[in-house]
Amino acid sequence: MGSIIPLRSEPKTSSRSLKSLQRLVADDLAEVNTLILERMGSRAPLVPELAGHIIAAGGKRMRPMLTIASSKLCGHTGKRHVILAACVEFIHTATLLHDDVVDESGLRRGNATANFLWGNQASVLVGDYLFTRAFQLMVEDGSLKVLDILANASAVIAEGEILQLSTNNEPETSEDAYLEVIGSKTAALFAAASRIGAVISNRSQAEEEALESHGRNLGIAFQLVDDALDYTAREETLGKAVGDDFREGKITLPTILAFWRGNTADREFWHRTLADRNQTENDLAHAISLLETTKALTDTIERARHYGAIARDALGIFPNGPIKDAMLEAVDFCIDRAH
Amino acid sequence: MGSIIPLRSEPKTSSRSLKSLQRLVADDLAEVNTLILERMGSRAPLVPELAGHIIAAGGKRMRPMLTIASSKLCGHTGKRHVILAACVEFIHTATLLHDDVVDESGLRRGNATANFLWGNQASVLVGDYLFTRAFQLMVEDGSLKVLDILANASAVIAEGEILQLSTNNEPETSEDAYLEVIGSKTAALFAAASRIGAVISNRSQAEEEALESHGRNLGIAFQLVDDALDYTAREETLGKAVGDDFREGKITLPTILAFWRGNTADREFWHRTLADRNQTENDLAHAISLLETTKALTDTIERARHYGAIARDALGIFPNGPIKDAMLEAVDFCIDRAH
Repeated sequence: MGSIIPLRSEPKTSSRSLKSLQRLVADDLAEVNTLILERMGSRAPLVPELAGHIIAAGGKRMRPMLTIASSKLCGHTGKRHVILAACVEFIHTATLLHDDVVDESGLRRGNATANFLWGNQASVLVGDYLFTRAFQLMVEDGSLKVLDILANASAVIAEGEILQLSTNNEPETSEDAYLEVIGSKTAALFAAASRIGAVISNRSQAEEEALESHGRNLGIAFQLVDDALDYTAREETLGKAVGDDFREGKITLPTILAFWRGNTADREFWHRTLADRNQTENDLAHAISLLETTKALTDTIERARHYGAIARDALGIFPNGPIKDAMLEAVDFCIDRAH
Repeated sequence: MGSIIPLRSEPKTSSRSLKSLQRLVADDLAEVNTLILERMGSRAPLVPELAGHIIAAGGKRMRPMLTIASSKLCGHTGKRHVILAACVEFIHTATLLHDDVVDESGLRRGNATANFLWGNQASVLVGDYLFTRAFQLMVEDGSLKVLDILANASAVIAEGEILQLSTNNEPETSEDAYLEVIGSKTAALFAAASRIGAVISNRSQAEEEALESHGRNLGIAFQLVDDALDYTAREETLGKAVGDDFREGKITLPTILAFWRGNTADREFWHRTLADRNQTENDLAHAISLLETTKALTDTIERARHYGAIARDALGIFPNGPIKDAMLEAVDFCIDRAH
């Protein structure tokens, strides 16, 4: 072992709608991937081994794509966006490693998790290491303003993880509380990744805020659609097994809507399966049928559509053009992959 | 003059959907109206005269209805909700009086405003007086917790008014900034009015928060629909002239969406009409046509529908029954009155 696992430049899942964005950012994203490979090297062979495992595992690279796209939208001509996109992906990867430890997950995107393969200690420490790598990249970039944005986002993510400890496996979580969790855990990094493009291009405060709003709302929409897909997608689309969230007792918007819309028997079912994690073979099928009869899945997508619409309108401050069109299409992709 | 103008117990506008709620709260609302009449008396005859003018001018009494309904939903059996509903309406009335001074409005719901009839000084001072009356009622009720909630809501409203000074007549306001303004100006009092029902009934923290969320989201939905109605309603439905917001240069979600979705010529139009308040005879018609071609009006209603849906789901924690049904219908009424 100890060898560096090559990064796939093509994400697993793709759709016509994401493709224009992928095409426009492809060259820069390849540079980001090269930089990631370089910077995840370490005297400790465990670092590239473990980091390579999770970074190579795929995912859509939404966050670095967002940094690249927003930088191009703002007319950035240098290479700062490459450094900062790598930095954003390192932060994201660090949180995934820690997340899997906290959630005691054994699978991520159909692959064994790092904590499953190398243990919790390695995952926690390599997560910390990647996080410091991210800060080194920011310092290299040299902008205190960017450091401020990404340090804040990181603090908010950590806080979101802590907040989530109290909603974990609690079917009575409110929609507000859940939105606060994903606003911190997912949307904060999307918002920062997007905002950076305006910052490094010296754009106005209004344009910074527009990109921040674009990222934040896209992040929420993205997470909500993920939540719904976990119950509805076919495995080849999802890149992981349908029902993973359910088996892990994860509380997501679909379960929250179904719980509160359900009757006493339904609520007992959710308590038993999600809080007590006492599940039998037919429970996933019953869960899906409850999610359907209560319209919890379609309404989760409806909620996502709302955030997607705000993400689209937030770009109104920027002139039309191929980058903006591709970003608008990417929003639609995030929602429509639900079908 | 100096006589007390009787309060209409029936609001101007009604719909089948609001009627079940109105029926269920009618007796309590009559007591609230009596209490309001009592408490707006003063050594200074100007107080009942001016306060009576605005309180009698109608409106749907949404906020006191919300306090009564949420109290009934929580099984409150005493009379505290009557005192506190009156208190909420006093706070609302005080903010309306001050609002009209700040906006230099001459008309509210088709009637001359208090500041137009009695001058700014009287409106400011009577607003202050009603605000202190509201606090007297809270002290009479005797709950520090209720005082805390309503004092906070009042501070948030005042802050929202100050925030709005910077969005006033600024067509480039962002959707986020606008949502923050109405979250403070409108939704904070809806949230507090609704939450009080759980507090005085000694309900759980979760139930308090559910009612708070119900009120806040209903408040946002209500305001957004109002924003759209200002451009689309027939005068008899609206209770005021169509286009008032436009003539006053008010920035609302429809104008924000139309501005950012519009081309250069559109944006110049909104700058001239809303920022410079330089309007000609055909401008309202042109504004409406821009709002239609950019889908700004339908999407404002779509946004409202989202908040309405959250307001509905927030009630899921309470058992079904006639009060809950009526409250759910009231949410639908708030959205559907747009048609």
